Amino acid sequence: MKTNTKKVVTFGEIMMRLSAGSHQRFNQAAQLNINYGGSEANVAVSLSHFGIFSEHVTCIPTNDFGWSVKAHLQAHGVSTRNIIAKGGRLGLYFLEEGLAHRSSKIIYDRFDSSFANLDPSQYKWEQILEGANWLHWSGITPAISTQAADACFQAISAARQLKINVSADINYRRNLWQYGKSPLEVMPDMINLSNVLIGGLVDFENCMGIQATDFESGCLKVQQKFPSISKIANTERISLSASHNKISALLWDGDGLHRSKEYELTQMVDRIGAGDAFVAGLLYGWLNEFSNADTLDFAIAACVLKHTVPGDVNTVSVKEVQDLVQEINVGKLLR
Amino acid sequence: MKTNTKKVVTFGEIMMRLSAGSHQRFNQAAQLNINYGGSEANVAVSLSHFGIFSEHVTCIPTNDFGWSVKAHLQAHGVSTRNIIAKGGRLGLYFLEEGLAHRSSKIIYDRFDSSFANLDPSQYKWEQILEGANWLHWSGITPAISTQAADACFQAISAARQLKINVSADINYRRNLWQYGKSPLEVMPDMINLSNVLIGGLVDFENCMGIQATDFESGCLKVQQKFPSISKIANTERISLSASHNKISALLWDGDGLHRSKEYELTQMVDRIGAGDAFVAGLLYGWLNEFSNADTLDFAIAACVLKHTVPGDVNTVSVKEVQDLVQEINVGKLLR
Amino acid sequence: MKTNTKKVVTFGEIMMRLSAGSHQRFNQAAQLNINYGGSEANVAVSLSHFGIFSEHVTCIPTNDFGWSVKAHLQAHGVSTRNIIAKGGRLGLYFLEEGLAHRSSKIIYDRFDSSFANLDPSQYKWEQILEGANWLHWSGITPAISTQAADACFQAISAARQLKINVSADINYRRNLWQYGKSPLEVMPDMINLSNVLIGGLVDFENCMGIQATDFESGCLKVQQKFPSISKIANTERISLSASHNKISALLWDGDGLHRSKEYELTQMVDRIGAGDAFVAGLLYGWLNEFSNADTLDFAIAACVLKHTVPGDVNTVSVKEVQDLVQEINVGKLLR
Amino acid sequence: MKTNTKKVVTFGEIMMRLSAGSHQRFNQAAQLNINYGGSEANVAVSLSHFGIFSEHVTCIPTNDFGWSVKAHLQAHGVSTRNIIAKGGRLGLYFLEEGLAHRSSKIIYDRFDSSFANLDPSQYKWEQILEGANWLHWSGITPAISTQAADACFQAISAARQLKINVSADINYRRNLWQYGKSPLEVMPDMINLSNVLIGGLVDFENCMGIQATDFESGCLKVQQKFPSISKIANTERISLSASHNKISALLWDGDGLHRSKEYELTQMVDRIGAGDAFVAGLLYGWLNEFSNADTLDFAIAACVLKHTVPGDVNTVSVKEVQDLVQEINVGKLLR
Amino acid sequence: MKTNTKKVVTFGEIMMRLSAGSHQRFNQAAQLNINYGGSEANVAVSLSHFGIFSEHVTCIPTNDFGWSVKAHLQAHGVSTRNIIAKGGRLGLYFLEEGLAHRSSKIIYDRFDSSFANLDPSQYKWEQILEGANWLHWSGITPAISTQAADACFQAISAARQLKINVSADINYRRNLWQYGKSPLEVMPDMINLSNVLIGGLVDFENCMGIQATDFESGCLKVQQKFPSISKIANTERISLSASHNKISALLWDGDGLHRSKEYELTQMVDRIGAGDAFVAGLLYGWLNEFSNADTLDFAIAACVLKHTVPGDVNTVSVKEVQDLVQEINVGKLLR
Amino acid sequence: MKTNTKKVVTFGEIMMRLSAGSHQRFNQAAQLNINYGGSEANVAVSLSHFGIFSEHVTCIPTNDFGWSVKAHLQAHGVSTRNIIAKGGRLGLYFLEEGLAHRSSKIIYDRFDSSFANLDPSQYKWEQILEGANWLHWSGITPAISTQAADACFQAISAARQLKINVSADINYRRNLWQYGKSPLEVMPDMINLSNVLIGGLVDFENCMGIQATDFESGCLKVQQKFPSISKIANTERISLSASHNKISALLWDGDGLHRSKEYELTQMVDRIGAGDAFVAGLLYGWLNEFSNADTLDFAIAACVLKHTVPGDVNTVSVKEVQDLVQEINVGKLLR
Repeated sequence: MKTNTKKVVTFGEIMMRLSAGSHQRFNQAAQLNINYGGSEANVAVSLSHFGIFSEHVTCIPTNDFGWSVKAHLQAHGVSTRNIIAKGGRLGLYFLEEGLAHRSSKIIYDRFDSSFANLDPSQYKWEQILEGANWLHWSGITPAISTQAADACFQAISAARQLKINVSADINYRRNLWQYGKSPLEVMPDMINLSNVLIGGLVDFENCMGIQATDFESGCLKVQQKFPSISKIANTERISLSASHNKISALLWDGDGLHRSKEYELTQMVDRIGAGDAFVAGLLYGWLNEFSNADTLDFAIAACVLKHTVPGDVNTVSVKEVQDLVQEINVGKLLR
Repeated sequence: MKTNTKKVVTFGEIMMRLSAGSHQRFNQAAQLNINYGGSEANVAVSLSHFGIFSEHVTCIPTNDFGWSVKAHLQAHGVSTRNIIAKGGRLGLYFLEEGLAHRSSKIIYDRFDSSFANLDPSQYKWEQILEGANWLHWSGITPAISTQAADACFQAISAARQLKINVSADINYRRNLWQYGKSPLEVMPDMINLSNVLIGGLVDFENCMGIQATDFESGCLKVQQKFPSISKIANTERISLSASHNKISALLWDGDGLHRSKEYELTQMVDRIGAGDAFVAGLLYGWLNEFSNADTLDFAIAACVLKHTVPGDVNTVSVKEVQDLVQEINVGKLLR
Repeated sequence: MKTNTKKVVTFGEIMMRLSAGSHQRFNQAAQLNINYGGSEANVAVSLSHFGIFSEHVTCIPTNDFGWSVKAHLQAHGVSTRNIIAKGGRLGLYFLEEGLAHRSSKIIYDRFDSSFANLDPSQYKWEQILEGANWLHWSGITPAISTQAADACFQAISAARQLKINVSADINYRRNLWQYGKSPLEVMPDMINLSNVLIGGLVDFENCMGIQATDFESGCLKVQQKFPSISKIANTERISLSASHNKISALLWDGDGLHRSKEYELTQMVDRIGAGDAFVAGLLYGWLNEFSNADTLDFAIAACVLKHTVPGDVNTVSVKEVQDLVQEINVGKLLR
Repeated sequence: MKTNTKKVVTFGEIMMRLSAGSHQRFNQAAQLNINYGGSEANVAVSLSHFGIFSEHVTCIPTNDFGWSVKAHLQAHGVSTRNIIAKGGRLGLYFLEEGLAHRSSKIIYDRFDSSFANLDPSQYKWEQILEGANWLHWSGITPAISTQAADACFQAISAARQLKINVSADINYRRNLWQYGKSPLEVMPDMINLSNVLIGGLVDFENCMGIQATDFESGCLKVQQKFPSISKIANTERISLSASHNKISALLWDGDGLHRSKEYELTQMVDRIGAGDAFVAGLLYGWLNEFSNADTLDFAIAACVLKHTVPGDVNTVSVKEVQDLVQEINVGKLLR
Repeated sequence: MKTNTKKVVTFGEIMMRLSAGSHQRFNQAAQLNINYGGSEANVAVSLSHFGIFSEHVTCIPTNDFGWSVKAHLQAHGVSTRNIIAKGGRLGLYFLEEGLAHRSSKIIYDRFDSSFANLDPSQYKWEQILEGANWLHWSGITPAISTQAADACFQAISAARQLKINVSADINYRRNLWQYGKSPLEVMPDMINLSNVLIGGLVDFENCMGIQATDFESGCLKVQQKFPSISKIANTERISLSASHNKISALLWDGDGLHRSKEYELTQMVDRIGAGDAFVAGLLYGWLNEFSNADTLDFAIAACVLKHTVPGDVNTVSVKEVQDLVQEINVGKLLR
Repeated sequence: MKTNTKKVVTFGEIMMRLSAGSHQRFNQAAQLNINYGGSEANVAVSLSHFGIFSEHVTCIPTNDFGWSVKAHLQAHGVSTRNIIAKGGRLGLYFLEEGLAHRSSKIIYDRFDSSFANLDPSQYKWEQILEGANWLHWSGITPAISTQAADACFQAISAARQLKINVSADINYRRNLWQYGKSPLEVMPDMINLSNVLIGGLVDFENCMGIQATDFESGCLKVQQKFPSISKIANTERISLSASHNKISALLWDGDGLHRSKEYELTQMVDRIGAGDAFVAGLLYGWLNEFSNADTLDFAIAACVLKHTVPGDVNTVSVKEVQDLVQEINVGKLLR
């Protein structure tokens, strides 16, 4: 829990997740477990457990669930001082956890949330970003509403002016984007102001208008179109069943492609947020000036460990990640 | 579980209730308990446990929570054959159960539900009401949306034409009524086609434009303005604390006022739905041609017993109610 | 947990109790809580917690639930060395806990149990009772089956020959007694060999053929008919509701009647086994040569405390009972 | 939840299952989870989730657990209108779930149930089967009691006369059959009136007196002896451990043998009812005029998915089964 | 959750509380519920929910339970920036919740904790208290160890020099004070530097050497001996049973005695921390310049509400307290 | 549960284990599950389930958790008659269960327990061991305190004089041994009086000063130095992940080395106590005069089954172990 001097700011929506336990289907559950999560906030939480000073900016409703979002972040050591509360509702999603041959199922109930209706003018990004080393955003935010997209663009612009690194997790989700704009109208301007991308071929095509047959050639085309982008990373997941995945990751650094070790996942407690854990691992490596290869190893190991932690957020320590990278103590009983 | 030959149809929204258990406040809960409830559906469920054939008509989303609403009703023996499913979301409400000096708290999250967006033309009320003896509606439905109000009006009109009894639980809730109409624009036409009301002075004033200083004089004014109304009933609750209430009921039958015994409630498991249990008791009495005095005794005893049953619905039997009315076996261990 | 040198033997059936929790009705429960209990065994458990060496004799099925009965007794320090196991099933009962105006409900499923089918010849009572100071039985056992009645009679006879005190909790239950004999055919011979009775007017009438208008005159008639009986005790419970009882007790000692203080019970966790806790209190007092008045005070206080302990058995200590008798520390936070 | 116009009637006993959770052994459990199940009813429930109109006929006790059986079926959309209630008890079974090298264990407590004591004359099979396309029974029913066997034979006879398809799941269980008759005295007459069998070599030998060395030759002998039988199907399970099975299925259609794909089951939540899920899959395929090969593929996929659903009944949809058959979305996170 | 500009610092140990639920006795519990609490930290948490900026200073072990203490405070909005972590263990206490005639029982296991072994020189009180308006300590801290007493004295001294208000909750506990010093050797010097006391006659005698027969005369003697003390407050609890208390409070302000309304507590979820809730109410009133009478009314209402909140800390809002003071909405269902 | 005539005595500390469930990390748990365990007591419990008369000797605190330790042992049929209770605390350990790539974590909180402070003179070993066939101790006990080491040495000496077999599970744990002595000062004298060892190369080096490159050569050196030792056994665990281990065992019998079959463990509920289950299996085999090869097969199968049982103790029966040895019924559903 030692805090170093780096500071990361993240921006995005946080939802309440309500999930059925004990492998129950929705129609069997008498209770639902509460967790809070959002792609960008999950990155902030993981970074906090890595000892980075992180702050999450969002908009919450002025009710007990809004306060619970704040408590969630604060409990994990994430600063909430620039969170704005206003009337409205907290976005929700319901999770039925699959296993073996049965897939997991998510029912979203997130429209018309306080975050979707935020007022961009209330966020003073120059102040918020003062002293920060990094801003992280994801493609979920501009998909939610005009207001959310505007606030996100303003955050990125401010970061750019302050010469703060900007990472973007493209995270294309077709079912969002219902407010009248398409990703290709909105995303390129934001990506153009970012330095680091997390995404793959589907993201390139839908959010950047770039078609490619493989990750590396896609990355080259991205760099041509968006010259500010210096690094692009992505995870590759093979789902043999809901209980058996293989996962590895790629990192293109302008010069070439790094490919991580592939991990076999045969017992997964919770795969939600695994991508965010990967992003947090990347940011940790880069903020600490690891080599790109070491950064990728650290990030994929963090991602792998997230699968063992219930809930949306990764709470593993730097030491736990490093032990897995170095294959120390894996599966032991640590007395 | 013997079914008699009477049939009651109810119409209204059903929500998922998510409540914190073990006296936890919202910010302490790691889990929420699921229940399903809606004022009118609660009446149908209670009647089914009284052996009355009941059917509930509503609109549900085409997702697992919509199917769970159907399963909930069917498990309690309520017919669901005229329920319509369409896209959208299920309305929700969150319940923090108070006790002693701490009040219970409800956070509603019910706007823009499938029910609110129902298509009134899909309900064929002449067919739905065929063979029914009674239609029950509440003032919650016309408060939700134009569509809901239209469907409710059409149901009442059809019942009237078919000479079916119509009861209305006024149930005025100021925080609903957000779609642009006021209760006084909508409710009087519906009440005008009904025979029996459940409500009190606040309801008379806000939904019927009638001001009175006491229940009996209010009832007289109601009858003058709405001559179709032959009976008006209401419960009177005194909340000494969240754990200590007194409850009694009034029934005005055109000739005069019946006042029930007052029950002391010192251990309450769940007071949600107690009013609906009272309504079901009234309908049971009238459908079985009890005297008005006996009907009131039955209804308030049903209402009292509801406070001992977790969830929104009353599952007590006719015998359990009658035992309480007659003070038989109260508090015994029935072997 | 200091053990003194007195030894009490009890004989009777033990059942698995399956109860719905959280005030749920049977039709709401997704889980049932397991407890084990039986009137006579409950006495043995309570005495063990009072530091008396107690042994329970019964017949269990040769399956995991039979072994769990043994484990239950052994965990509470009760000797199980003369328990016999044979094929068959463990008797069950299901409990729906009432509250306030809703009564508790028991569904018995105890017929044809291993105990009902026990072989009386397998119990060597002279050996079992060697060194014992007291034998306790109840009227439930002879109600179960001919075999159970025979074994019980043999136990009592052996105790009598060994000049061991014999107490009988009459515990008349009309719904048992289905194997073809009536209580009046069976019970008098057993009572005739006993010294101490627990019972009231209903028991006197149904099991001893004695009619009386009040407890004291009933006791006199009992003594005339059964001269071996020297003491008769009983509890008096007033059930204002399932959550509000008043309880007191009477003890007739041949010379006259002792009446205990009346306790008000406004929060009851579990009233099952309260009568057995009373019996254990009586036996403790008499074994330690308390006066009859002190014995009664101790017994009713033990009974009162049982209402605060979940499950069938009373686990309070002598000190806890004595503190209540002396009104020390009642309701305090003992740090 | 779309209902098509086919109707299937099933007949058989339903029991309450009480199972220890969290991998506990019976002697560790403080609670037991409640489920309801019975081989034939499980088929009806699965068919209802496939959109088939299904009805289950049984006999339940007139107590809360009988009513809970009805509620269970109705919640799943199964008609209960011809269920008869009478005094007595509900059959029970206790389940200790094994894993890895520890086997699962069932303790039955089902003798002398209301179903075992049913009155065959109360079932009016011509009326019950009116409009039905299929009757399904299993070899468990005639094993329970003379009355149950009689009612089952009458149902089959009526179906035959009404030219309704009859399927029989032989389901030989040696520990049942304790009322004095052997399977070979009872089963052949019933099989003789059926069209489709589910069973394997052990069933052929014990219930039909047919010995064979392999499934196909056994099927040929069955057809010679019971010419009404046109199809025979069976699952083949290889238990490497309680947590690792392989499963496939065979279908003989008079012309030859179809063999399904083999599925590897490495995470199983609940294997109880997997055979019933297979039968429901077969019936669904045949009622919808799938080819025998497609029917078998559908049935084994349904069976595989059942292993992921807690409880006795399979609640997967046609789409979920078809996705598995076509290997679409297997193990994905469906947003 | 609006924060005003006042700042309060508290200092003391935080323990993990492990409590049996569902009214179980220790020997019945299969699980224990986790809470974190400590007298002074509880004050900080309550003040944070009142919108006061509060900070708690303590010493935690460098293990997961130490981090959980931080997370607990941060979730409630309490600053943890001056908490020091070192090797060792977290103090524990086990709670068996009594009810009715059964008392609650605490088993402490707090000796040799990291806090007890803290290094006083690590706390830079001038820096810690910079900008603070109030320091709160309790008599538990000097009872723990020489080091704890030293750190507490240094904190008080620094506050005094900075002219910050200092309140002391005497909280005499005989079973602590095992490190070789008596309260009378340690406490007077600390009290001498404080302005406000919470305590009663037992505290006066044991920690200040003052004997008095009533609270007011005791207060006068305190002021004579400790002229810095300007106000003394205390709660008075009457325990009719573990489930039925009456509570009121006294405040002596140098001029005279204020006595609050007496509240009847008939349903108590958790009385631990009620005294700390009272202290937080006092501090809130004084920091906001309420009159002493209003401060007392606010404080006792806060204390009363704490009894309805599970866990050690009071999470009610200013509005909830004020509603109770003004008897608004008490026991209502707030929609 | 048949008891044979062999008797085994074990001696050592028992702790309360508090573990997070549902794969939660410590910082997520709202509850902790209670289990009781200690290496030597676990052996006694397993032997009791094998039908051996076993007795455990220890020192417990005179509080509810001490009594719960007794209840735990008695419930499993282990004699507690020579347990001594004294003031102090029960040792604790906290368990976070890992899975897949996340390791399990134990936080010990066991110092200064009642056991550590036991008075060796209170144990009358000649009486305690009267009639016993075997004494089992482990290297944990002499690591705890001088008193514990002394009592252990006295027990071993007495056993030796009484010509009772003595087995020692070396169980070297570096983090214990904090009272000022090193294992090499204490252990050799105890091993010198023992007949059978359980341990491996790390144990040989740290507790016996013997270095070897492989197990067999290590055993030879042990025998040279400690000629009383006739057999040495050990398990070999390969941890591929926290959810995937392989386990096998070795037994050196003076003549040569037996190596067991290797079992693959892909679903493990609880690996704590697996080594103790192995020891109990060895003792069972030897007490029943199995060959060394059969003893090893039995012991490793018992160890494998322990991984499927939650908690510290192995509750499988001899039949369950033998079925696994013979590969009968593995993974079946036993009806």
